[in-house]
Amino acid sequence: MAGSTFGTIFKITTWGESHGKALGVVIDGCPAGLSLNEEDIQLYLDRRKPGTSNISTPRKEEDLVEILSGVFEGKTTGTPISLIVRNTSQISKDYSEIASCYRPGHADYTFDQKYGFRDYRGGGRSSGRETIGRVAAGAVACKILSQLGITVSAYTKSIGPIEIDPAHFDKDAILTTRTAMPDRAADEKAVAYLEEARKNYDSAGGVMECLVQGMPAGIGDPVFEKLDANLAKAVMSIGAVKAVEIGDGIAVSQRFGSENNDPFCPGNGRITKMTNHAGGILGGISDGSTIVIRAHVKPTPSIFKPQQTVNTSGEKTEIKIKGRHDPIIVPRAVVVMECMTALTILDTMMVNMSARMDYLTDFYKK
Amino acid sequence: MAGSTFGTIFKITTWGESHGKALGVVIDGCPAGLSLNEEDIQLYLDRRKPGTSNISTPRKEEDLVEILSGVFEGKTTGTPISLIVRNTSQISKDYSEIASCYRPGHADYTFDQKYGFRDYRGGGRSSGRETIGRVAAGAVACKILSQLGITVSAYTKSIGPIEIDPAHFDKDAILTTRTAMPDRAADEKAVAYLEEARKNYDSAGGVMECLVQGMPAGIGDPVFEKLDANLAKAVMSIGAVKAVEIGDGIAVSQRFGSENNDPFCPGNGRITKMTNHAGGILGGISDGSTIVIRAHVKPTPSIFKPQQTVNTSGEKTEIKIKGRHDPIIVPRAVVVMECMTALTILDTMMVNMSARMDYLTDFYKK
Amino acid sequence: MAGSTFGTIFKITTWGESHGKALGVVIDGCPAGLSLNEEDIQLYLDRRKPGTSNISTPRKEEDLVEILSGVFEGKTTGTPISLIVRNTSQISKDYSEIASCYRPGHADYTFDQKYGFRDYRGGGRSSGRETIGRVAAGAVACKILSQLGITVSAYTKSIGPIEIDPAHFDKDAILTTRTAMPDRAADEKAVAYLEEARKNYDSAGGVMECLVQGMPAGIGDPVFEKLDANLAKAVMSIGAVKAVEIGDGIAVSQRFGSENNDPFCPGNGRITKMTNHAGGILGGISDGSTIVIRAHVKPTPSIFKPQQTVNTSGEKTEIKIKGRHDPIIVPRAVVVMECMTALTILDTMMVNMSARMDYLTDFYKK
Amino acid sequence: MAGSTFGTIFKITTWGESHGKALGVVIDGCPAGLSLNEEDIQLYLDRRKPGTSNISTPRKEEDLVEILSGVFEGKTTGTPISLIVRNTSQISKDYSEIASCYRPGHADYTFDQKYGFRDYRGGGRSSGRETIGRVAAGAVACKILSQLGITVSAYTKSIGPIEIDPAHFDKDAILTTRTAMPDRAADEKAVAYLEEARKNYDSAGGVMECLVQGMPAGIGDPVFEKLDANLAKAVMSIGAVKAVEIGDGIAVSQRFGSENNDPFCPGNGRITKMTNHAGGILGGISDGSTIVIRAHVKPTPSIFKPQQTVNTSGEKTEIKIKGRHDPIIVPRAVVVMECMTALTILDTMMVNMSARMDYLTDFYKK
Repeated sequence: MAGSTFGTIFKITTWGESHGKALGVVIDGCPAGLSLNEEDIQLYLDRRKPGTSNISTPRKEEDLVEILSGVFEGKTTGTPISLIVRNTSQISKDYSEIASCYRPGHADYTFDQKYGFRDYRGGGRSSGRETIGRVAAGAVACKILSQLGITVSAYTKSIGPIEIDPAHFDKDAILTTRTAMPDRAADEKAVAYLEEARKNYDSAGGVMECLVQGMPAGIGDPVFEKLDANLAKAVMSIGAVKAVEIGDGIAVSQRFGSENNDPFCPGNGRITKMTNHAGGILGGISDGSTIVIRAHVKPTPSIFKPQQTVNTSGEKTEIKIKGRHDPIIVPRAVVVMECMTALTILDTMMVNMSARMDYLTDFYKK
Repeated sequence: MAGSTFGTIFKITTWGESHGKALGVVIDGCPAGLSLNEEDIQLYLDRRKPGTSNISTPRKEEDLVEILSGVFEGKTTGTPISLIVRNTSQISKDYSEIASCYRPGHADYTFDQKYGFRDYRGGGRSSGRETIGRVAAGAVACKILSQLGITVSAYTKSIGPIEIDPAHFDKDAILTTRTAMPDRAADEKAVAYLEEARKNYDSAGGVMECLVQGMPAGIGDPVFEKLDANLAKAVMSIGAVKAVEIGDGIAVSQRFGSENNDPFCPGNGRITKMTNHAGGILGGISDGSTIVIRAHVKPTPSIFKPQQTVNTSGEKTEIKIKGRHDPIIVPRAVVVMECMTALTILDTMMVNMSARMDYLTDFYKK
Repeated sequence: MAGSTFGTIFKITTWGESHGKALGVVIDGCPAGLSLNEEDIQLYLDRRKPGTSNISTPRKEEDLVEILSGVFEGKTTGTPISLIVRNTSQISKDYSEIASCYRPGHADYTFDQKYGFRDYRGGGRSSGRETIGRVAAGAVACKILSQLGITVSAYTKSIGPIEIDPAHFDKDAILTTRTAMPDRAADEKAVAYLEEARKNYDSAGGVMECLVQGMPAGIGDPVFEKLDANLAKAVMSIGAVKAVEIGDGIAVSQRFGSENNDPFCPGNGRITKMTNHAGGILGGISDGSTIVIRAHVKPTPSIFKPQQTVNTSGEKTEIKIKGRHDPIIVPRAVVVMECMTALTILDTMMVNMSARMDYLTDFYKK
Repeated sequence: MAGSTFGTIFKITTWGESHGKALGVVIDGCPAGLSLNEEDIQLYLDRRKPGTSNISTPRKEEDLVEILSGVFEGKTTGTPISLIVRNTSQISKDYSEIASCYRPGHADYTFDQKYGFRDYRGGGRSSGRETIGRVAAGAVACKILSQLGITVSAYTKSIGPIEIDPAHFDKDAILTTRTAMPDRAADEKAVAYLEEARKNYDSAGGVMECLVQGMPAGIGDPVFEKLDANLAKAVMSIGAVKAVEIGDGIAVSQRFGSENNDPFCPGNGRITKMTNHAGGILGGISDGSTIVIRAHVKPTPSIFKPQQTVNTSGEKTEIKIKGRHDPIIVPRAVVVMECMTALTILDTMMVNMSARMDYLTDFYKK
C-alpha cells in the first residue's frame, strides 16, 4: 500500500531510490507563517551525509536540498512544501552483481517476493538514502518545536560493547565526534573498535538514544495512538532498528513495582516526578518529564567477508559485497531518529489542540 | 484525537471504561462469509479474565460477549460487527479515594492534564479493561488468519528473573499454567516469586513473546509502514509495555555483521534462511520465517505499599492503594499481545492484495 | 473496506442493521468537558422517527438512545462515546420474500455482488435505519457547534413539483409540519401530492436544503479536502441522494462571470459579500457568509405497484413489495443532512486549529 | 490540515503553486509491474494545456512531465512515483496588483483568512495549475483501469445554454473540438457564444459529464464510503465545480418511484437493468451499468470588466483584472474530471479485493 506517508496533520510523503534521479519529500499541513529557507534543512541533511573519517563510507554525496513549493517571501504558506535532493554521485555499475542474488540481511529477497522484481541498484527504495526525505521534513518539524520551547536531541549511546559514560555527557560532542557520541573518551574507543571491525571485513551495531526536553504534560492519546506507541513505530520504521525502548525500557521487566513507580512531587509551581523510569510518558500521554527513547541498531548487513546465500533462481551461491559501505549505521542514523521523533511529537501536539471544549471556545469565540 | 481506532482495511474501534455500563468494539472491514459466533470470541476473552489462583486479582469478571450486528445466519456479512461486554461486577466505591490524588505509575495525572478532568473510577479508560475490545476483535482476526494457515501465539517468556527454558517449550502449558508460561518448571518458580512479591505488598514485571508461524513472504511495506514498525506500535500500545524487540532485538547492537546476517539457503521448493536473527522481517517485509516479537512489561503500578505522591491540588501526600489488583500484568496480557499482532498481520495482508499489476488483472479479468 | 467511519479528529463509526439486535455509533475524538445527556441526542433521533401522519410509515420505532461510555458526571471525558439504540419493533417475517429477488432501486443486487450474500431482512445495513448512528453522533456535533455560535439547519425545500416560497420562510414550521417544510402553505400542497402518490401505490422525491449560519471565515482546505468537497461527500453518502449543490449550484453553469461573482464589501468591522451565489465557500474555504447546500433525493424505491425484476438466479420475475414504507424519504432525512453537515463542519474546524504558526505558539507558550 | 493527499491505497499527494518553481505529484501505492513512461502521462497533461484557439488563454505552458522515481526498466516498482512539471512561462509581475485586494469569486480572501497571508502570484496554490498533479496521477490510474477493461471518459456537455445533442454523440470530437464537446455542431455554437462573452469582457460556465464503462458490479461500500459519495467529493474538489449529479441527478426529485426505479432484467449471462436512472450505483455500490457523473462549473471568476471589491485593509475599491484568462474553464477541466474519477474508481477497486473470505483464501492459499 501507500507506505511512504507519515502523520495525521503534519503529514509527510517521501519518495526516491538510491540510484534514481532524485529523492525528496512533500510536507503537507505545515502551519503557515514559519520562516524557512534551505539552510534550515541543509544543516540536518549534512548530519546524515557520509563523513570524511574512515568509519563512514568514502562515497561523496552532496545532498543539496532545494525548496520547490510552499514557501513565499521566506515564510511557509500552509500549502505543500516540496523538497528535492538530486542524486549526483550514484554509479550504477557498482551494484550490478546484486541483481542476480540475495544479500543476507538486506531486503532484496523480500522486495522480489512482494513486488515481483526490484530496482537492484544500491538497494533501490530500501537503501538508507530513503531517509533523506525523513530528515528534510524532520528539520522543519524541529524548527517548529524549537519555537514552542521543545528540544529533540539524539546521539549514539553505544557501539558494540563501548558505551558512553553519562557522567561525562558532553552535548557538543554529538555534532563533532565521528561516532555522534556525547563522550569523547568513549568515541575514541568506539572508533578503534570500528577500525578493527573494518579490518576484519566486518561491521558493527549500536544503540541510539533520543531525548525530548521541554515537553508539556498532557500530549498523546490513550489506547492505540499512545505517544509511546507512535514513537515506537516512528523509530522502528528506520531501517536496521530491531528494538525500541521507552524510559528504562527492558530493565523494567525485572523490577518490583515499588522500584519502578515514579513518585509525584510538587515542583516549581507544577507537579513533577522524583524519578523518570517511565521516560516521560504515562498511559500514552506525556507527563512533563523528559521523553527518553532508545533504538537498537543491527550491524550494517553489507560486509566484505564472503557470505553464503542463494541467487534469484533459488540456487546456493556465495556473495562478496563490493563497493562503499559504512561499517556502522548508527552515527549517521541519529539524526534520522531525531527527525522521526520530532515529526511524531509535533503531529501529536497539533492534533491535541482540540482535546477540550474550552480550547475550542477560546479559539473560536475570541 | 480519535485514538481508539486501529487498522486500515480491517479497522477496529474500541470503547468503554473500567466502571462504565459496558465495553466493546466495532470491527469494520471484516471480509464477508466468515463463520462466526460468540464462542469464537469468548474463548479469547476468557484468557484475559482474572483467574482463580492467587496470582491474579480475585475480582469476578464474567465478561460475556454479545454480537450485536454484522453476522447473519452464522456468517459475517461484511458490514460492521459490533461486540459488547457488559460491566457487571464493578463497584465504584472501591475507587473513590483516587479521585483526589495521583497514583504513581498510572495515567491519573496525564489524563487530568490532557482532558481537564477524568473518570477516576478504576482508571476509567486507562484501565486494563480497555483491552476487552482489542481481544474481542483480535479473536476474529485470529480466526481468519488460521483459515489462511497462519498461527499467532503469545506466551510469558519471563517473570522477574525467572525465564522459560526453550529446551522445555511446552505449547499446551500456555493455556493451562497460571503464568501463561510454556514451561511448567519455570511456572512453578515464577508463581513462588510472585507470591513473595505479593507478601511484600509489591508487584512484578515480565516479558511476553509472540510468534507468527506460517507467514508468507512479501507482506509489509518499505519506509513508514514497515511490518515491524506497525507491530511495534501495536504492541507498545498495550498498557505497561515499555520496550519492543523484533527477532534478536536488543542483542543485535553488540554483534558483528557476520554474526547477525541470516544466510539464505534453498528450502523445500522455496528460499529460506539458515538462521532467524531478523525475526522474520527484512526491510519491513516478511521473509517467510517465523515472525518473533517480544514485549517488556513493567510491574503493575498498583501496589499496596504506601507511596509518596501529590494530590490534585499539587500538595504532597501519601497513598495506600486498596482494592483488587494483579501482582503482575503479563499472564493476562499475553492474549492481548497475540490479538494486537493478529490484527496487524491481517490488515497488512489485506492491504497487500493489490501490490502487483498481475494481482489486479487476475482478480478483475477472470 | 471499512466504510462506516467518518471524520479525521471528530471521528464516528456507525454499526447495525435494520433487523439486528441494535444500532449505534462510537464517537471518538469528542472534546472533553461538554455537558451531554441522552435527551440532547434523543431530540435529534425523534426527528428521524416515523411520524404519525399518513405520509410516513406507520411502523412504531421507539429508537431510545442509551449512552454506554465516554460521559462521566454529565460531561464528556474525551474518550469514546458509545451510543446504542435497541431494535424493538422489527418483524423479520415481513421481509422474507425479498430474500430471493432483487428489488429495483435497492441495494439487494449490489450487496450480493460485493459480499456474496446479504442480510435481506429490511435491507440489512442498506436500510435507512443505518442513519440512526449518524443522527446520534450529529446531535453531539450540533451541540458543540451551537456553543461556538454556529447553527446548522436543514429543511425540505421541495417535494415533487411543490416548492417552498422563500418569502414565506417560517423556521418554526420545520419541526412541526409533516413535510419538514418551512412554509405551511407549501406543506399543505405537498401533503396532498404525497397522498395522491400513495393512492397510486407510488412514491415521490424531493429536495433538502441545509444552512450553516455563524460560520467563521477561513475554515477548510485547498485541493482535495475542500470544505465543499467534504460536504458533498457527507451529503451524497445519505441513501437516495443523487445530486448535491453548493450555493447556486446547477444554476451557475448558465451564468456569465459578471453575474455570478459575489462582490466583496466592507461590513460591520469585517469583510462581507454583497451576494452569496458561492454559498459561503471560495476555493474550498469558508468565506464567512452562510453556507448553503442542497441535496436531491430520489423517490422511495419501495413502491406497492408490481415491478419487473429478476430473482437471485437471474430469472425474470415480478415483485410486489409489501410492508410499511414511507412514500417519501425527505421529511425524515432532513435531520440526517443536518447531522452530516454538522459533523463535517466541526471536524474541519478542529483540524483548522493548527493552520498557522501563531496559533501553535499562542496555544503552547501561554 | 494536509489537504493535498487523496486515496487510501492508490494514494496521491500533489504540490506546487501557479508561480513556484515547479508542480508535481507523488503517487504511492501504485501496483508494481505496470509499464509506464513519460508519454503515457504527457498525453493527459496536453489535454489540460491552454490551446491555441481564442477561447483559451494565449499563455504558453509547456508542462513537460519528468518521472523522478518509482519506475525501473520501464516498469513501476511499487514504490512512490514522483512526477514533476517545471514552471517555465510564469511572469510574476503580471499579478502584482492582486496582492493588495481581493478578486471576487477567487480564494484570495479565504486564503488570507485561513493562513494569515498568501502567495498572491497567479492565485498561488488556488490556481488551476494545481490540477497538473491530479492529471499526471490520473493518467497512471487510467492506464491501469484500461488494462482491467474499464474506460473513463469525460467531455463538455453544455456551455452556457448550448447543450450537446446525444443523438449526435461523436466520441472522437472530445479530443479535437475546442470545447471538448462530442458534437461538432454544438461546438460551433458554443465557440460563438464564448467569443461573444469574451467581447463583453465576460466569462461563461458549463457542464461536464463523465462515463465509466466496463465497470464490474459490486465495487464500493455502504454508508460513508459509498462510491457515489467518493465520486462527489473527488469531482467537487475541482475548483469552480458547484454541483455534482449521479445518473439522472437533480431530475429524480421530481419523479415518482415507478418512473425512477430501474427494473432488473436478465442480460448476456448476467443481470442488467432495463434503464440506468441510477447512473450505475445502487446503495453506494456499482451495479455493472455505466457510471454517469455530471459536474456544474461556474464561469471563470477572472473577468476583464471592472468589479467592485475591497482591498486587504477592508476598504472599498474597484478591480480591473488583467493578464491571460480563459473565458471558460470547462474544456480544459474535463480531463481533470476524468482523472479524479479514475483515481476514485481505481482506489475503490483495490480496496475491494479483500471484501470476501474466499477472496483471501483464494489469494493466500494458492
